Amino acid sequence: MKKENKTEQKPRIKIIPLGGLEQIGMNITVFEYEDSIIVVDCGLSFPEDDMLGIDLVIPDITYLKENAHKVKGLVITHGHEDHIGAIPFVEKELNIPIYATKLTMGIIENKLKEHNLMKNVKRKVVKYGQYINLGCFRIEFIRTNHSIADAAALAIYSPAGVIVHTGDFKVDYTPVFGDVIDLQRFGELGKKGVLALMCDSTNVMRPGFTQSESTVGKTFDNLFLENQDRRIIIATFASNVDRVQQIINSAYKYGRKVVVEGRSMVNIITTASELGYINIPDQTLIDIEQMKNFTDDQLVLITTGSQGETMAALSRMATSLHKKVSIKPNDTVILSSNPIPGNEKSVSKIINELTMKGAKVIFQDTHVSGHACQEEIKLIYALTKPRYAIPVHGEYQHLNCHRELAIQMGVPKENVMLLSSGDVLEIGEDSAKTVGRVPAQVIFVDGLGVGDVGNIVLRDRQHLSQNGLLVVVVTLDRGSNQILAGPDIVSRGFVYVRESETLMEDARHVVSEAMEECLAKNITDWARIKSVIRDSLGEFLWKRTKRNPMILPIINEV
Amino acid sequence: MKKENKTEQKPRIKIIPLGGLEQIGMNITVFEYEDSIIVVDCGLSFPEDDMLGIDLVIPDITYLKENAHKVKGLVITHGHEDHIGAIPFVEKELNIPIYATKLTMGIIENKLKEHNLMKNVKRKVVKYGQYINLGCFRIEFIRTNHSIADAAALAIYSPAGVIVHTGDFKVDYTPVFGDVIDLQRFGELGKKGVLALMCDSTNVMRPGFTQSESTVGKTFDNLFLENQDRRIIIATFASNVDRVQQIINSAYKYGRKVVVEGRSMVNIITTASELGYINIPDQTLIDIEQMKNFTDDQLVLITTGSQGETMAALSRMATSLHKKVSIKPNDTVILSSNPIPGNEKSVSKIINELTMKGAKVIFQDTHVSGHACQEEIKLIYALTKPRYAIPVHGEYQHLNCHRELAIQMGVPKENVMLLSSGDVLEIGEDSAKTVGRVPAQVIFVDGLGVGDVGNIVLRDRQHLSQNGLLVVVVTLDRGSNQILAGPDIVSRGFVYVRESETLMEDARHVVSEAMEECLAKNITDWARIKSVIRDSLGEFLWKRTKRNPMILPIINEV
Repeated sequence: MKKENKTEQKPRIKIIPLGGLEQIGMNITVFEYEDSIIVVDCGLSFPEDDMLGIDLVIPDITYLKENAHKVKGLVITHGHEDHIGAIPFVEKELNIPIYATKLTMGIIENKLKEHNLMKNVKRKVVKYGQYINLGCFRIEFIRTNHSIADAAALAIYSPAGVIVHTGDFKVDYTPVFGDVIDLQRFGELGKKGVLALMCDSTNVMRPGFTQSESTVGKTFDNLFLENQDRRIIIATFASNVDRVQQIINSAYKYGRKVVVEGRSMVNIITTASELGYINIPDQTLIDIEQMKNFTDDQLVLITTGSQGETMAALSRMATSLHKKVSIKPNDTVILSSNPIPGNEKSVSKIINELTMKGAKVIFQDTHVSGHACQEEIKLIYALTKPRYAIPVHGEYQHLNCHRELAIQMGVPKENVMLLSSGDVLEIGEDSAKTVGRVPAQVIFVDGLGVGDVGNIVLRDRQHLSQNGLLVVVVTLDRGSNQILAGPDIVSRGFVYVRESETLMEDARHVVSEAMEECLAKNITDWARIKSVIRDSLGEFLWKRTKRNPMILPIINEV
Repeated sequence: MKKENKTEQKPRIKIIPLGGLEQIGMNITVFEYEDSIIVVDCGLSFPEDDMLGIDLVIPDITYLKENAHKVKGLVITHGHEDHIGAIPFVEKELNIPIYATKLTMGIIENKLKEHNLMKNVKRKVVKYGQYINLGCFRIEFIRTNHSIADAAALAIYSPAGVIVHTGDFKVDYTPVFGDVIDLQRFGELGKKGVLALMCDSTNVMRPGFTQSESTVGKTFDNLFLENQDRRIIIATFASNVDRVQQIINSAYKYGRKVVVEGRSMVNIITTASELGYINIPDQTLIDIEQMKNFTDDQLVLITTGSQGETMAALSRMATSLHKKVSIKPNDTVILSSNPIPGNEKSVSKIINELTMKGAKVIFQDTHVSGHACQEEIKLIYALTKPRYAIPVHGEYQHLNCHRELAIQMGVPKENVMLLSSGDVLEIGEDSAKTVGRVPAQVIFVDGLGVGDVGNIVLRDRQHLSQNGLLVVVVTLDRGSNQILAGPDIVSRGFVYVRESETLMEDARHVVSEAMEECLAKNITDWARIKSVIRDSLGEFLWKRTKRNPMILPIINEV
């Protein structure tokens, strides 16, 4: 970056979101000034329905690789996958020191261990109120509330001014663990002057306030009371340690033993317990193997799979595929979560499955969101009174709604900056504008492959998934170009062959005729022959079946 | 069916749902007594996410085909796809007379015309209160309210007693078209004695009452007032004629011209208008070509695509693919519908797209359901006081919830019959039990093929969609069994080849070695050779990529 030398101009920094805007997830934002870059969060996304066969989606870090020498550190707001999930992939390429609060770091370290990266990566645990210096930037961690403990907002002190980044947050006056979000500090920062507020947009379309996490505890108490004779199974998000704490509290109160099931749940509870973020009374937790020593009314099972994920514990229990637990009529199953958009059908499916096994299923009013609604977002604006608003963490409809809210809270219309992933925002006291773009495509992870599946491969998978394929094999004589064998046709995913023998026979005929015409015309270019096969067979199949399978002609010569 | 001859036993009929229970849609129910069969409704479903490439799902009518000589008629409750969509497919095979109310028949006739079936199929339009005699059954059509006009409940008089089938219904005291549901008649039937109530379960999990359709009209009036200077575009279900009527009413009131866009919408409005189910003031409707002669504040566009369907008019407008309308900042787009479960993401996507074009999008409180909530369902139980309850139209969780409601309304627990598709319920005054099963698989329609895509083909499509495929081609010498050409490997949907040349080279090597080993061991059985190729290549690819593509070995001989 070239240093600007005009005397009049106030310093400007660059803010570049590399993900997290067009779709929720994959949060990662670059802050740059001269030779300093810091990165806030480093998340992944889960694939959309049309990303066939893809396991994970991670951000494109081309820009960071090209500026690797500038990158001073990775600052993480909290321990959710959409904020930390891509760390191992990035650390394999770049090796950046990581800064995070204690629980967040504990969860990150679990990931680094899995990827054998613990030795290489520098890490520093930061406390609320503490500052870290990274190049030209100074970062302060500020306490917030969220659906995972130890979430932080960031005050980013830069030569251009202070940027407040809320991370994911809510305002919880009665949190289960720790204290209320540090509203005083937001106010103090606002008094001194905030250049820009980057604020969570997830629930910006919902009026009012998000309820306190502790209200769910009261609900659990009531449900435990109403279901005293039954076994209770509660599914929730693995990372919601406070929710698990409240289940344990109710279990203890009603004299039940607690079993934790599901790999990700066990991992996070173990970490949270080691680091002191969850308080489990002695002899409350039992191993799943010990369940048989207790009666239904003495047990609570906490498990993963509240989104209906087919591989998670709850789904395996519901479909009798779980080795140690199966659902029975004396079970009360509580889904303590709302379906994430896109998961509604799978959640509904698991409710059906559980109900069919005779279980009582409870899924309403057993969850509160971890994100701020409109009145909480307004509160942050009222405290920080930013010159610029840069809505983050939302799809376009959310960002757009956030814009209206910011304007309502006194931010001038032209000072609300709606960014897309890859936009380079140059911002200073006297101006803010998008000055360019950097690569910010999504990168697909499929098995061990990172980035080797792109749009062409996905388009082929899409085509194959809709209509299947026909492989046409012909063997030609090298000298005479006469057909020695074939054409043979093999199909997969097209039509059940026994019911379509005449169709396939006719198809072979069509290909034979097309080939013979080619040879009669002395067409010997294989590419042209293949194209003739594709066209003639494709047209024939469309007429006969109104389907459009992939056609793969293979010619070989002996 | 063998006639029971015991003197003591009361007559029993059979009730066989052939669809509509495990998943919403595809409603079709068989009623049988001795040599009489009637069929109530004949719907289709749209494919689930895992039914790759499937266009439609229709019921299995094997049982009807086997008993074709008994089938007296097809009685239709209302004109929605999940109740009439499979009629053309069934009529092509069975040719059954159809009985329905006027608008319902009009919509059915549109379908029959498309399939060139008008001449062959007998049809009779039935009025509310009218009876029809079909073999041993007598059927009365009873007025109900629903999200389409002319919906009917049925009283089915049988030798075993009266069955009341509600169809899809709600209780609307202020309907837009026609009168309130005929509650008196339900009460009269109840007084005389109802054997069984088959009642809509769609909204049985929602407490309270569904709001009247006419409340939406008031909302439209307010929105027209608030958006006086803007062009208004309203997307809703094509079949909701009353909704369209209310839009037209508001348009007329505010002096706007109305354009109807989207093929299914135009079809149904035309039919409804011809049959007198919609009242369009003169010179209100204009052709889409005339839009250019009017300003934004003089126009309303009514369109399809409220579920975010990518091929529908609204989506094409939002993505600038529509030839005649594109979305602009002065548009207010109203989605007058709720997302059907499973469509949440595509609805959210279209909201983002519309917002990005600058349009104001309104999608909350602009819709009411067409199905009865708990209090309305209770009302029908209180009026009919059935001996048996057979909940219909719902997934298992709905049916199960309906069971509790029926018990609460005084139906003995053992008299609530939860059926699955294919169950044969034998029911009479003195008993009801499931006595067997008939085929009730779903039949897939893909292009012109009905039933030629089954689970094997779908499994292949699933496999192909996740990992793509590799075709391995080898040519052997007929005499010596030596390799003359190949092995050649062609892949699709597996990995972008230019990035994986060494992988493919290594793969060829693995296959060569495996082949040579086979030939050295004198293995000449092609099935065995293919299996060796699949295993060795599959193992190699899993190790290298953790992916599991379909492997298709093709051997030919010259």
